[in-house]
Amino acid sequence: MKARVIVTLKNGVLDPQGQAIEGALGSLGFSGVAGVRQGKVFDLEVPGTDAESARSQVEAMCNKLLANTVIENYAIEIYN
Amino acid sequence: MKARVIVTLKNGVLDPQGQAIEGALGSLGFSGVAGVRQGKVFDLEVPGTDAESARSQVEAMCNKLLANTVIENYAIEIYN
Repeated sequence: MKARVIVTLKNGVLDPQGQAIEGALGSLGFSGVAGVRQGKVFDLEVPGTDAESARSQVEAMCNKLLANTVIENYAIEIYN
Repeated sequence: MKARVIVTLKNGVLDPQGQAIEGALGSLGFSGVAGVRQGKVFDLEVPGTDAESARSQVEAMCNKLLANTVIENYAIEIYN
């Protein structure tokens, strides 16, 4: 099954990369853009055809490798 | 309005970072995981209350800064 994982910084964690992008957007003429935060996306295929087992596998991957749960949140979407 | 931009590599573009993650997942015991691709997420707030104008603003940002449209695709979601 296909899965998409979206990893974002938790609220309150500083995001200098997002701030740099916000500044660059301002320089390019996009005024009023605020709250820019950058995160990561992972697309992957997990073996098996059961959505629940796929989700629990991907959850384990997030906790072990894909996300740093001290400072990051993750969201999992499972597709057929 | 709030917007989320998801930037992913186009099909056929090599993703060494994704391959490294796939190898690491295999080493951690997640066998059979395939097709790992890494992308980027941007969360931002754009001024105004019209979804259509917000979308066209964000599209311009993607073309100018957020995505490299030679090798990357982008998808835009607009929230209230």
